Amino acid sequence: MQNYVPPVDDYRFLMTQVLGFDGAMAEMGLEVDSDLAATVLEEAGRLCAERLHPLNRTGDEEGSRLIDGVVTLPRGFADAYREFQEAGWASLSSDPEHGGQGLPFILQLWLDEMLSATNLSFGLIPGLTRGACEAIKAHASEELKAVYLPPMVRGEWTGAMALTESGAGTDLALLKTKAEPSGENGYAVTGTKIFISSGDHDIGGNIVHLVLARLPDAPAGVKGISLFLVPKFLPDASGGFTVRNAMSVGALEKKMGIHAQPTCVMNYDGATGWLVGEPHKGLAAMFTMMNAERLMVGIQGLGIAGGAYQQAAAYARDRLQGRSADGSRGPVAIIEHADVRRMLLGVRAFVEAGRALAGWTALQLDRAHRHPDGAERARADALVALLTPVVKAGFTDFGFESAVQAQQVFGGHGYIREWGMEQYVRDARIAQIYEGTNGVQAMDLVGRKLPLGGGAVAQGFFDMIAADLEGQATPVAAGTCEALQLLRDATAALHGADADRLGAAAVDYLRLFALVSMGWMWARMAAAAKDGTSAHSGKRAVADFFARRMLPQAKGLAAALSAGAEPIMALPADAF
Amino acid sequence: MQNYVPPVDDYRFLMTQVLGFDGAMAEMGLEVDSDLAATVLEEAGRLCAERLHPLNRTGDEEGSRLIDGVVTLPRGFADAYREFQEAGWASLSSDPEHGGQGLPFILQLWLDEMLSATNLSFGLIPGLTRGACEAIKAHASEELKAVYLPPMVRGEWTGAMALTESGAGTDLALLKTKAEPSGENGYAVTGTKIFISSGDHDIGGNIVHLVLARLPDAPAGVKGISLFLVPKFLPDASGGFTVRNAMSVGALEKKMGIHAQPTCVMNYDGATGWLVGEPHKGLAAMFTMMNAERLMVGIQGLGIAGGAYQQAAAYARDRLQGRSADGSRGPVAIIEHADVRRMLLGVRAFVEAGRALAGWTALQLDRAHRHPDGAERARADALVALLTPVVKAGFTDFGFESAVQAQQVFGGHGYIREWGMEQYVRDARIAQIYEGTNGVQAMDLVGRKLPLGGGAVAQGFFDMIAADLEGQATPVAAGTCEALQLLRDATAALHGADADRLGAAAVDYLRLFALVSMGWMWARMAAAAKDGTSAHSGKRAVADFFARRMLPQAKGLAAALSAGAEPIMALPADAF
Repeated sequence: MQNYVPPVDDYRFLMTQVLGFDGAMAEMGLEVDSDLAATVLEEAGRLCAERLHPLNRTGDEEGSRLIDGVVTLPRGFADAYREFQEAGWASLSSDPEHGGQGLPFILQLWLDEMLSATNLSFGLIPGLTRGACEAIKAHASEELKAVYLPPMVRGEWTGAMALTESGAGTDLALLKTKAEPSGENGYAVTGTKIFISSGDHDIGGNIVHLVLARLPDAPAGVKGISLFLVPKFLPDASGGFTVRNAMSVGALEKKMGIHAQPTCVMNYDGATGWLVGEPHKGLAAMFTMMNAERLMVGIQGLGIAGGAYQQAAAYARDRLQGRSADGSRGPVAIIEHADVRRMLLGVRAFVEAGRALAGWTALQLDRAHRHPDGAERARADALVALLTPVVKAGFTDFGFESAVQAQQVFGGHGYIREWGMEQYVRDARIAQIYEGTNGVQAMDLVGRKLPLGGGAVAQGFFDMIAADLEGQATPVAAGTCEALQLLRDATAALHGADADRLGAAAVDYLRLFALVSMGWMWARMAAAAKDGTSAHSGKRAVADFFARRMLPQAKGLAAALSAGAEPIMALPADAF
Repeated sequence: MQNYVPPVDDYRFLMTQVLGFDGAMAEMGLEVDSDLAATVLEEAGRLCAERLHPLNRTGDEEGSRLIDGVVTLPRGFADAYREFQEAGWASLSSDPEHGGQGLPFILQLWLDEMLSATNLSFGLIPGLTRGACEAIKAHASEELKAVYLPPMVRGEWTGAMALTESGAGTDLALLKTKAEPSGENGYAVTGTKIFISSGDHDIGGNIVHLVLARLPDAPAGVKGISLFLVPKFLPDASGGFTVRNAMSVGALEKKMGIHAQPTCVMNYDGATGWLVGEPHKGLAAMFTMMNAERLMVGIQGLGIAGGAYQQAAAYARDRLQGRSADGSRGPVAIIEHADVRRMLLGVRAFVEAGRALAGWTALQLDRAHRHPDGAERARADALVALLTPVVKAGFTDFGFESAVQAQQVFGGHGYIREWGMEQYVRDARIAQIYEGTNGVQAMDLVGRKLPLGGGAVAQGFFDMIAADLEGQATPVAAGTCEALQLLRDATAALHGADADRLGAAAVDYLRLFALVSMGWMWARMAAAAKDGTSAHSGKRAVADFFARRMLPQAKGLAAALSAGAEPIMALPADAF
């Protein structure tokens, strides 16, 4: 494997030339500028490259293990986590009120990119802890917050989210885990949960599970679900956390990828827990963590694509095969072959646009939390809500396809484990599935997000893109304008559509939305990359590739969308 | 896992209603009709469903093993192979002159579909043997044929193809394995080969390797490569094959998938071999086997997609989640959800069109070998040459995407090994890579096949499709007509193009070609499915889905193709 090179130059370009980072920070009264931010990212990148990247392959081969009820991470993981935690990376963007460093979320997302590029299994551990913290912060009692948030924010304790059961995945209405009042303010939680990322491990410290369960008087369906905080270790009389709670790991899930990640089947056998938020309002609390997680999961697709790109580009520069196009030289590096370039450019055109769009979206999230003007906060919050499913599903779909393309560059070697490319494919695949499958994300976009503000949020987003593109003469600006019109038409066609029509359109619509959003970022980047440096001319070249080779997909998607639901609903269920 | 249901009803529909099987057989003087063929396929399907399908998951978990130089297949494989071989399935389509049953190639391809649907690792064993037989039959001396063909055709002995070296994959000009004259008519072959499917195993019988190597006086490059027959066991004085040749398994490749398949690193240490064909003409001999293999590899993509479809459709009918579109009922089977149907229909629309196109292409191969009229043989041969890269790359790309879609239907369970869906994805992935990557296939299509007959072969194929579609009023016929025009335009634009332009276009062009070819088959099937049975109305519904939801991709591809090579060649190699 090649070393991983953190894309700090690209982050710096985006901050200074494309996203107006310094102005945005000043507007929010944050004392962070792009120089400081780049330094932070450089430090984080070094840890990812030097400590986590080398553990990625070995972690995949070894996997997490469950022996006599005890989960052990692959060699080196626990040490690397302690180093990560002690250096403060776990608390980068968390609220200073609870011990976080309060750095802007854009740095968090780009750190997540580098974590995912170098070691997705590892990155999930702090990532899920952060999501759990969000839910606790937003919904738990002051007592619970005071006890649990500080060590979790510092990353000394980690978090896990226990939602899914074997009969209840996307549809949580079906979940059966029970919680009965027990002791003072406590509950006894009983049930079995599956697919619990970071459910147990040997990092040390407490593991705080947020568990969805039903109270005895709960109404049926999703309106009867409550959220409980269930720690692995309960407080003892002297205030330490040494008492083992009645919960255990039933099994480690055997998965396609992320082998190092200890994904658990968890048994709660009357485990002690405390209610987080109101009774029966667990779904709302859960969505607090899900929304934070969803952006992060999108970034996982981006990160893996970026990591795989670096490997594939290096291989293509080194590997000698075939003759030059004019036949005069050979063997030449396969980077000379047009089809190899096509594959690499496809990956890169996604990665760089995704990185930019992730940054833009993260800035909106920062604005939503910190902007002094309430109207501006609300506007930014709505944009984040709109973009969240696009980032989650769009980035993980393009991310998976990118991993497959990067693997293809290696030919037969790409299929051999030793080279590491097939791991990217297996690891990337999960991001299309968890935290709500990409189909569910797409339904969220068309069913919940397009109607926001009576359609005004999406409309406002499209208008902003149009305004940005106006007067730009690059091919990518022109192409994006065209694709934007297709997106506007498709959006109008879905207005007031029934559930079948929405469901039939959702995934293709989201992809069209993602293409337009990436085109917009490419237009901004191409406009900003004005000088004669190789970095800038490279940006313009990739922008051109995106415009002329990838954006045309929009035409096919728009045409397919116009067919509506009928071709999908016609076949009777028993004829499948 | 659900049982596998062999698609014999669909084969029968294709033979009797779509492909004119009985007429074609009569024209070639073959005493096979569609009833007999269906009976043969039913028997073959039973073996695949009952014996091979249950070994697929266990074979993946166990994998082939190498202990003290001896390769062992996973439990049950050797027994299943003997049953397969003794029932005559290994020799189904082989030449009766060498002990084969001489059944038409269309039955062979459909058997290959069922083998791939149920156990790709297993299916590769007889598949590669057949390819090796083709090369021996076409190029080896009568002496070699007499000794090696009969037991290989019967499947008592198996074959392996040893082409790739670590520094020489797609570009065989770089290969270094040497062959030096030794003994009477023999050669001593020395070198290391990688990625050798079925290189060794414990089925018993001889294993006949066809090895590419260089003679001492060989010119450099591809014009200095010769082909050698190198058996695992050499003849002893009494005519038995008991003498171990100087070759050994260096390692089993650790792969992303097809774990049961013993893919070997092979060391030839002065192994005794015999020249197959002329000195320095090994590449031509190799292409004899490669061409036969490439159709089979395409069918692997089809088979896995069909197997995965059956699992996903059954799951979608059983799995209860969410509410009906009008909100009145819930939980409902997820087959009611539009997005789940979209995924399933996408897979099925490929599988059924692919099955038909595979059948059509196989009939051309039969015509090319057996038709009484020489001009007709030549015409059919050219069509097979044209379609071979389309079937290989198109079917394996759609096949992989189909496996991914089918996995997605399972949500989180799709990522868990136990459910078997992720194995389809891992196994399907290899078919896009081996026997010439799909990029190489696409270059073969645009660089070698389009120019056949000065472009007349492709032109003739397009004209045939146009004639077939004429007067048909279905949406799929109309959509295919439109897409055909885009394909004709793209073909014209590539006429006389340089290597960069061809390479930049190749993969997208091949996909467009595959879409049109599948659309053509859907038009034929829709026209044939005229009655009110559920089978026929199902065909029409899926045809409609293909036309309105999948064919529109053609627009995006055509637009991307029109951009030419410039957006791909602009970025300097060191800027990747």
